[in-house]
Amino acid sequence: MIHKVVIANRGEIALRILRACKELGIKTVAVHSDVDSEALHVKLADQSVCIGPAPSIDSYLNMKAIISAAEVTDADAIHPGYGFLSENAEFADICNNCGLTFIGPTAENMRLMGDKISARQTVTSAGVPILPGTKDGVPNVEEAVRIAGEIGYPVIIKATAGGGGRGMKIVHSPASLPNAFAAARSEAQSGFGNPEVYIEKYCERPRHVEIQILADKHGHVIHLGERDCSIQRRHQKLIEEAPCAILPDDVRQRMGDCAVAAAKAVNYSSVGTIEFLLDANNDFYFMEMNTRVQVEHPVTEMITGVDIIKEQILAAAGEELRFKQEDIKINGHAIECRINAEDPEKFTPCPGLINGYHTPGGLGVRVDSAVYDQYKVLPHYDSMIAKLIVHAETREEAIKRMSRALDEYLIEGIKTTISFHQKIMNNKEFIEGDIDTGFLERVKI
Amino acid sequence: MIHKVVIANRGEIALRILRACKELGIKTVAVHSDVDSEALHVKLADQSVCIGPAPSIDSYLNMKAIISAAEVTDADAIHPGYGFLSENAEFADICNNCGLTFIGPTAENMRLMGDKISARQTVTSAGVPILPGTKDGVPNVEEAVRIAGEIGYPVIIKATAGGGGRGMKIVHSPASLPNAFAAARSEAQSGFGNPEVYIEKYCERPRHVEIQILADKHGHVIHLGERDCSIQRRHQKLIEEAPCAILPDDVRQRMGDCAVAAAKAVNYSSVGTIEFLLDANNDFYFMEMNTRVQVEHPVTEMITGVDIIKEQILAAAGEELRFKQEDIKINGHAIECRINAEDPEKFTPCPGLINGYHTPGGLGVRVDSAVYDQYKVLPHYDSMIAKLIVHAETREEAIKRMSRALDEYLIEGIKTTISFHQKIMNNKEFIEGDIDTGFLERVKI
Repeated sequence: MIHKVVIANRGEIALRILRACKELGIKTVAVHSDVDSEALHVKLADQSVCIGPAPSIDSYLNMKAIISAAEVTDADAIHPGYGFLSENAEFADICNNCGLTFIGPTAENMRLMGDKISARQTVTSAGVPILPGTKDGVPNVEEAVRIAGEIGYPVIIKATAGGGGRGMKIVHSPASLPNAFAAARSEAQSGFGNPEVYIEKYCERPRHVEIQILADKHGHVIHLGERDCSIQRRHQKLIEEAPCAILPDDVRQRMGDCAVAAAKAVNYSSVGTIEFLLDANNDFYFMEMNTRVQVEHPVTEMITGVDIIKEQILAAAGEELRFKQEDIKINGHAIECRINAEDPEKFTPCPGLINGYHTPGGLGVRVDSAVYDQYKVLPHYDSMIAKLIVHAETREEAIKRMSRALDEYLIEGIKTTISFHQKIMNNKEFIEGDIDTGFLERVKI
Repeated sequence: MIHKVVIANRGEIALRILRACKELGIKTVAVHSDVDSEALHVKLADQSVCIGPAPSIDSYLNMKAIISAAEVTDADAIHPGYGFLSENAEFADICNNCGLTFIGPTAENMRLMGDKISARQTVTSAGVPILPGTKDGVPNVEEAVRIAGEIGYPVIIKATAGGGGRGMKIVHSPASLPNAFAAARSEAQSGFGNPEVYIEKYCERPRHVEIQILADKHGHVIHLGERDCSIQRRHQKLIEEAPCAILPDDVRQRMGDCAVAAAKAVNYSSVGTIEFLLDANNDFYFMEMNTRVQVEHPVTEMITGVDIIKEQILAAAGEELRFKQEDIKINGHAIECRINAEDPEKFTPCPGLINGYHTPGGLGVRVDSAVYDQYKVLPHYDSMIAKLIVHAETREEAIKRMSRALDEYLIEGIKTTISFHQKIMNNKEFIEGDIDTGFLERVKI
């Protein structure tokens, strides 16, 4: 078994890992940048080591310093959390070469799933659907008609050199394809200096739905159901929930099976997430695999009762999974709001001193946060300062619980996104479960 | 449906009720004594009314002032919490006469179960076991032998006029009864000036195990499993857990059936608790029924997912129970520690200003508390300032989770019992589940 873990991260996830270690009886080493010495996980860890100056590149991404910290403290494992070095295959290799257990998947897992092309090939061969289309340029309208026919309408035409929506054309029938194709090429030329366009399946009002995977080193892979992470702003998830409010049982079953198949295809051996796009017809398409624990893992913990970080540590230690697929039961509904130190209108970071802090409590309320009263939110790092998670019997009750918990949450001295979340919890479309990844662009909050 | 509730209580239970009301969309009125105007539930309520000076008799027990507060604010219901007026049948009558819904059982329920003799008669007729014995004086040794034979050994001889253990004799066989009887009479005479003694069944190392009842006004009664509240100091519960670590399934089933039968026997119609003494042979005996919500209700909420206060409010509003007995599933294990503003060695109250407050968080941790940083714990009321509740898959994991949560809980400026609880969580006998109501007298903490 692992006896001492270096927590190579900061903020709430560092505290989350520390809590799991304490409950498992594992000693902890906090490594931190010089501006993070007052961090809560540093105070609570058995030992702490400063690994460099504030910029992440000099500290939280400084592999040498982190490995040294493990050696100096006689630790035998490293937990990378999310972000930073968590999906860095080279770091996993270095850990292994130094005799340290990297608490995550193998370097090979990361390399295979980290590369979009190899990931798509791998999951396709395992029978997992991917979004039909081609990333190659389409030379002429005849070819465009052929490809669109193959893919099935609606399709979207995008500029190869483009981005940000410019030059995109959505086409619902073959009749309108020639005009749209010409217009897209022309806009691509004027917008990006290159007329080349490509075609892929167009998903109308897609949801971001992902499956949590749990795998050990003995070939056992199970899933813990899905999360709906459709409430995003510029591809940044803000609210996540589990289960997905509208997923039919048979689709849930197939999506879970696909996720397990994808993980098995790469011989995966840790926690991980398979992200899918779910369209309005409940067809789903593989997007990517995240080979780490995710910010939103708590909603899955709430509805399954499984402590995902504990299981990740135990799997890394070589233990067999303690659960079989049939042991996993979904209970109730959970929602997570990411509370950021940001202006709730403009979403610009607002770091600074917290002077007044009181967390909500009571039944079904969980706070994952490493801030405290008189803590100074630093400008150097991500602005997420807390995750507020609620669990209730139904989605409707969970929304009401989140609303009352947000009401109770007092963070003074800095701006936060609490009021933004409160608006979402009172939004009719959100309450009705009518959400997709375009929700925040479409709906006036 | 109820539209506005007067919360006729203070502290954590007032906040607990407020949270349930908010989640149900019910308005709240906080009534408070003049020293309680800074209380958290007062700040969070929709309205607040001062009902008198600090002494409870002038405020929280002041029926007239509370009824007036309801009338002034146009409330239509009163929730009494626990303690104070919660088991006062006269108050329930007054509420009804004023057209206010008393959120609790009927006055008749309270009267029947509040009187020990009528309660014992009622439950006995419903087939619920009570501790065998007689409260009448036993005139001579022949009668003593006869009664003990009927009850079954071991028995305990107690002074009718006595108390505090003096003059008590435990007898394991008929052979030693005559001597013990004579000695008990003699000690009773010298100790209390009256030689009269009585005999009852002696429970060796009994546990306090209680069943949570949920009943509506339509005759439906279910139970939510048991709680083990054996960790007591001078009959004051300090730690509660659910389920009971050692209860065999068949005993659990019978105890639950008995509790439902007892509640049905009085036509009970709210939440309530049937308290039993469980002996070393797993025989159990009715002690009393609490006709209110209890301090320790959260452990049951954690393992069943049922929001007991919400159900209590809905039942009072005349709704039918939303659950059938077979819907109730027990998940994992929960423990509650009552954190008191007391010296952790002497258990003397230590009120005062909290200057530094940080609650634990993360998976499976719940804090029910109405205190906050810079809150002044008042000397006028009960010293309990927080309930720390944890939930985990197994009892072993729950103990470890409680231990790490206690570690994180920071309450500065006053003495609290956090360190006492930490010692219990690390006590071998407690960890092994070897507990009974004499635990704290027997075990060196």
